[in-house]
Amino acid sequence: MSKHGSLRLVAGMVGGGQGADIGKTHRYAMRLDDRYALEAGVFGRDGASSARIAESLGVPADRTYRDYREMAERESAREDGVDVVAVATPNDSHFDIARAFLEAGISVVCEKPLTTDSASAAELVAIAEASGAILAVPHCYSAYAMVRHAARMVRDGDLGRIRFVAVEHSSGWAATPLEIGEHRQARWRTDPDVAGFPSVVGDLGTHAFHLLRYVTGLEATRMSAELDTLVPGRRVFDNATVRLTLSNGAPATLWASMAATGNEHGLRIRVFGDTASVEWRHEDPHHLTVRDLDGGTTILTQGMRTLSEDATRLTRPGLGHPEGFLEAFANFYRDLADELRARRDGEPTTIRDLSFPAGRDGLIGVQFVEATAASHAADSAWVVPAFAHEKVGI
Amino acid sequence: MSKHGSLRLVAGMVGGGQGADIGKTHRYAMRLDDRYALEAGVFGRDGASSARIAESLGVPADRTYRDYREMAERESAREDGVDVVAVATPNDSHFDIARAFLEAGISVVCEKPLTTDSASAAELVAIAEASGAILAVPHCYSAYAMVRHAARMVRDGDLGRIRFVAVEHSSGWAATPLEIGEHRQARWRTDPDVAGFPSVVGDLGTHAFHLLRYVTGLEATRMSAELDTLVPGRRVFDNATVRLTLSNGAPATLWASMAATGNEHGLRIRVFGDTASVEWRHEDPHHLTVRDLDGGTTILTQGMRTLSEDATRLTRPGLGHPEGFLEAFANFYRDLADELRARRDGEPTTIRDLSFPAGRDGLIGVQFVEATAASHAADSAWVVPAFAHEKVGI
Amino acid sequence: MSKHGSLRLVAGMVGGGQGADIGKTHRYAMRLDDRYALEAGVFGRDGASSARIAESLGVPADRTYRDYREMAERESAREDGVDVVAVATPNDSHFDIARAFLEAGISVVCEKPLTTDSASAAELVAIAEASGAILAVPHCYSAYAMVRHAARMVRDGDLGRIRFVAVEHSSGWAATPLEIGEHRQARWRTDPDVAGFPSVVGDLGTHAFHLLRYVTGLEATRMSAELDTLVPGRRVFDNATVRLTLSNGAPATLWASMAATGNEHGLRIRVFGDTASVEWRHEDPHHLTVRDLDGGTTILTQGMRTLSEDATRLTRPGLGHPEGFLEAFANFYRDLADELRARRDGEPTTIRDLSFPAGRDGLIGVQFVEATAASHAADSAWVVPAFAHEKVGI
Amino acid sequence: MSKHGSLRLVAGMVGGGQGADIGKTHRYAMRLDDRYALEAGVFGRDGASSARIAESLGVPADRTYRDYREMAERESAREDGVDVVAVATPNDSHFDIARAFLEAGISVVCEKPLTTDSASAAELVAIAEASGAILAVPHCYSAYAMVRHAARMVRDGDLGRIRFVAVEHSSGWAATPLEIGEHRQARWRTDPDVAGFPSVVGDLGTHAFHLLRYVTGLEATRMSAELDTLVPGRRVFDNATVRLTLSNGAPATLWASMAATGNEHGLRIRVFGDTASVEWRHEDPHHLTVRDLDGGTTILTQGMRTLSEDATRLTRPGLGHPEGFLEAFANFYRDLADELRARRDGEPTTIRDLSFPAGRDGLIGVQFVEATAASHAADSAWVVPAFAHEKVGI
Repeated sequence: MSKHGSLRLVAGMVGGGQGADIGKTHRYAMRLDDRYALEAGVFGRDGASSARIAESLGVPADRTYRDYREMAERESAREDGVDVVAVATPNDSHFDIARAFLEAGISVVCEKPLTTDSASAAELVAIAEASGAILAVPHCYSAYAMVRHAARMVRDGDLGRIRFVAVEHSSGWAATPLEIGEHRQARWRTDPDVAGFPSVVGDLGTHAFHLLRYVTGLEATRMSAELDTLVPGRRVFDNATVRLTLSNGAPATLWASMAATGNEHGLRIRVFGDTASVEWRHEDPHHLTVRDLDGGTTILTQGMRTLSEDATRLTRPGLGHPEGFLEAFANFYRDLADELRARRDGEPTTIRDLSFPAGRDGLIGVQFVEATAASHAADSAWVVPAFAHEKVGI
Repeated sequence: MSKHGSLRLVAGMVGGGQGADIGKTHRYAMRLDDRYALEAGVFGRDGASSARIAESLGVPADRTYRDYREMAERESAREDGVDVVAVATPNDSHFDIARAFLEAGISVVCEKPLTTDSASAAELVAIAEASGAILAVPHCYSAYAMVRHAARMVRDGDLGRIRFVAVEHSSGWAATPLEIGEHRQARWRTDPDVAGFPSVVGDLGTHAFHLLRYVTGLEATRMSAELDTLVPGRRVFDNATVRLTLSNGAPATLWASMAATGNEHGLRIRVFGDTASVEWRHEDPHHLTVRDLDGGTTILTQGMRTLSEDATRLTRPGLGHPEGFLEAFANFYRDLADELRARRDGEPTTIRDLSFPAGRDGLIGVQFVEATAASHAADSAWVVPAFAHEKVGI
Repeated sequence: MSKHGSLRLVAGMVGGGQGADIGKTHRYAMRLDDRYALEAGVFGRDGASSARIAESLGVPADRTYRDYREMAERESAREDGVDVVAVATPNDSHFDIARAFLEAGISVVCEKPLTTDSASAAELVAIAEASGAILAVPHCYSAYAMVRHAARMVRDGDLGRIRFVAVEHSSGWAATPLEIGEHRQARWRTDPDVAGFPSVVGDLGTHAFHLLRYVTGLEATRMSAELDTLVPGRRVFDNATVRLTLSNGAPATLWASMAATGNEHGLRIRVFGDTASVEWRHEDPHHLTVRDLDGGTTILTQGMRTLSEDATRLTRPGLGHPEGFLEAFANFYRDLADELRARRDGEPTTIRDLSFPAGRDGLIGVQFVEATAASHAADSAWVVPAFAHEKVGI
Repeated sequence: MSKHGSLRLVAGMVGGGQGADIGKTHRYAMRLDDRYALEAGVFGRDGASSARIAESLGVPADRTYRDYREMAERESAREDGVDVVAVATPNDSHFDIARAFLEAGISVVCEKPLTTDSASAAELVAIAEASGAILAVPHCYSAYAMVRHAARMVRDGDLGRIRFVAVEHSSGWAATPLEIGEHRQARWRTDPDVAGFPSVVGDLGTHAFHLLRYVTGLEATRMSAELDTLVPGRRVFDNATVRLTLSNGAPATLWASMAATGNEHGLRIRVFGDTASVEWRHEDPHHLTVRDLDGGTTILTQGMRTLSEDATRLTRPGLGHPEGFLEAFANFYRDLADELRARRDGEPTTIRDLSFPAGRDGLIGVQFVEATAASHAADSAWVVPAFAHEKVGI
């Protein structure tokens, strides 16, 4: 059966089984706009539990696979094979799985950190480029309508020249030594063998850094980092303060923490330009605060008809009807769907100025983690991150 | 094919085609938790456009019907026929459509106002009861996790005896005479023949009144209303102030407006008890503010592990990940799915203390509208609403 | 010694001794701008304690009097006698004291309620007019810079025609039966013989009603009220909901409570016009929220250079330096000082469009209390308040 | 005339004449609680304008001096001479003036920065200690009731061990090159000869740093700073980001800016402990936000009876009556008055755990500025500030 022309895409998933919240989130996000049908997958390490999950998800038994290699091979052989696979497995398996699908010409959505080191991340990016498949990284916060509007305001010069940025992802989720108990996520996220020593940077810092890049359109040319372990006995760093110089010369700060006692989520960005500043907080994602030189504060709300098309096209019920995290994640998948479909059907690219994060963004994230570790090891001296040496883009 | 045991329910829809935002909302809500498959429907008045919409929604051509009568007849004859139908048509057609399905033993989700007068609304409720089918009314705001938590706090006595309630649904959406232009929704909502003279009461006031009843568990025993037309030239009332006496003797106020210039959505409830008060606002739906006798304010957030099970079971990604309007609507559909499935499979009812609004809630809403009109006609004198004469419940 | 030309005014006080918070507040307010020297007074019922307080306040012993009659007589005979006297005694003594000074040609600041009935209040107003002395009533909330700015915006047409107003003064200060214990203020404020049955209306409702009149520039032409006793066993009404029709035909609501559990102060006004709305809350008095037809929200802050002169002239340290209740009270005294000085020195009046509340405002307050009682007694029927029968102004 | 026993203190002022806002602020603060009588001063460089200001302030002509030397000499010779002198002159004159009074045994309130270098600041501190006079520095933000409460919570262990602190004083007041125009304050604050190159650090950073020290009770043991000039053409640094290690090993960040476009005042502190965190913002100074490990947020309000005595004793009208900047400044003067009086009358010291900032705090501020400059010069390397080498306290 030819898929040409169909509005819906055929999706698969690797991982995301029992207890994997992130797998559920991907499925919510795929479903919301009805642009994907989940038709294939590997949902667990043993076949029985994988089959049980597949059934509950309505995935046909004959497209539930034992492992990703089999899946890549057989799906790429089907005419109605999957257009895209979401990889929601532990970090250290990302590389092998993503490579298998990309090499088979199947697009991949891969959770960050893309891989455990920048060399392998760069390899994935190269494979994707060679194959024509898409490698997408769900930095979903950049898909909030009001984040898009902020990015548009910066692009349109509404803030003047950017002169300072302060971004934070300071959560309180691991403010206690959760990993001592049965908290599964806490255990692997504080295991240096799985999460790496700069765990909090890979986990939360990369979201903050991507948000900074996405909203400002600027890159970092040098940075200095201090990594801390705030919770006694913890085996990884759970707090990071980073100082950056941006590509236009402006200074910036980034704070990532998983031990900020009492904080809900803690993702927040403030961008100061010559003529205005904007602030966005994840705790109140459908609003954007704009401040002007006179001290006046304007609060823009998702759904206002005066917003940019970048925000409007990602707004569902409209003014007064808050949208949240799942909708933002769904926005990521919606933009991706447009491009997947365009490639499938041989139509012009739909990638626009403000689109979804791709492999290079994931690579930059890994390089960012490595640069924080390098600076920390050098007593917080300035370092030049790898991505500053080359021109990067989507 | 027997549906017994299947997790998913088969859903149909009448209305909700081109330009009908509410139809889209129902579909988002059905999809999010993957508990419904939309398999049948009538999506418009002419067959061609209905077929086009059906196709875009993945509804099979042979289950796309010309009209609701045909649909009720043929779906009730199928073994795999629809379990439930969402009625998203103009108000004046609710009665006939809902009756057709209920009489065929098919459950119905009917938008409020249930019907245009309380006699017909009562008839629908009676038909549903006789048929064993469910008649549900999507007062979706009662399905927000934090509204449920507020209702639980009241039930558990955390506020002491309720002594005063102030509820508002004061929106600014029609603060200008939109109906003069091409705004379709504004035209029918300000047409007394379609929306009735107390338009704003049926439209927004019933949501506010249901929220009051849901959170407090109290009914109104008498009420006094003033209806106003704030926008010059408008043919219906667009503002209403209602004074109520609740079933425990406490006074309350309700304000409904569609002309509250500058307001986003404006749904807000404040409940004052002897020992504490709570406040919930739709502009920030994932928080609940609690105030105590000492003047201390506590803000509870969706996802906190200390919340009631009523809130927790309706929380998806968890603390720090805001959920919004579509998730609340999906919560309504999720609770409904549990009960539809239980009835389908002959299992015990899942209706709980804090569950979804049903036909009687819709009937009470219609009686509420009629009572405001009666009081207004009597120079805002106290009137006893019809529902105060009888014992009502789900 | 002639006072002509001196910047400072000579002030006296009756009441405001031991435990009288309001006396302290008046003294803070007089001192802040250094426009008054407190030089005479009666600070208590017995001479010894009055003398002790006078000494601590730096009031000379020879100008500390046994009673207000002596004070009025002797001060009016001095060339350097008091220009103004603040009356901070229990409500039932206001009339006699204020009359004594006014008849002696001495201006009076009298706490509200001006008197215990409108006939005597009207008499005071008449005496003041005849004598050339000023009778001022400290509805101090109207002296906040941002309230003045709101009033200016309305006067300048920035909101268009006013179409609805919601004002509240719903405090939680007496949410428990404090009066059973030793709480002195609670005892007299819940004693019907001292505070009157509609205690909460006189106490808080009059502030709310004055704020409504001050900000909108509108009067009420009819009103309907329900009075409640929310705290069991309380001897006065502690909650009032009032529905009003304003002089331009717009509806309005007013809610006054001293039993709104958990509320701090609860004074808040929302004014909706055809083109914009404003909201001001006493919990955050240095900001004013403006909302427009597009759903945009602008927050204005005291000290912004773009504000009206009405706000700017009452701003002390400037942007970013919050001012509070005492500063507002001092603003009342500052405006009064300008006018007292002008009259003393025979210069043109300084009374402006937005100035301090005077005797007529106090009279209207008393009439407002009487009208709520009358409506309540008539089962909340509409009544026409006395002030609607005559033209009123400052 | 002996002053012994008198409640009021005799105050003098040097500077604070025409256009000097800070002089006005000191006078508001002295007046509010009626603990000071301003009886002597030098209010300007030329005698005529000084005399004019003195008269308007009610300062006797015979105690209006040509210069501070004459004032120190003659006032110290009077039995009723000034108890304390407020120095509100440009920074570079602080040292000479303060020394003259301290050497004459007269206490001094000196604006920060205390002097232009730490050697002279240390000399002033030593002179004060030798003379028995008080040298006080008005870091007035530490005198807000809710800041005191935060400091008390930390002292009482309510937050557990402090693990991270983020403090900011990021204002937008000089977000444009105001100094090019006639803005007097902007001109001297951006003149490196008057304000020093790290202007923003001395001006705002020292307030932020003092607040951090005051609330946490911790000192800094090392720090790293980056200084920026955000406004093109500006001759001083107008933005500083500082990374600190506190005396208990916890990391901290400090951001000071006078070019944070759109910010009102921007003073904010967040203190994270093992078991809870607190946040205080100058834009809303009568509230304190406390967050716990469960994600719950509690907002404490000035005037609540459950607050610490440290907050309660500095609260004037009480719950629901916001106090602001001038009240905080007056709190500083009130605490100082208690101690001045105790010393004057030979009574035990009133200095308590949480009291007013003194000379050593001013010295530490100057050392802080010097350390930021040193680190910046060393490419933001870690430096050990001078105050970390010695034990410091009040």
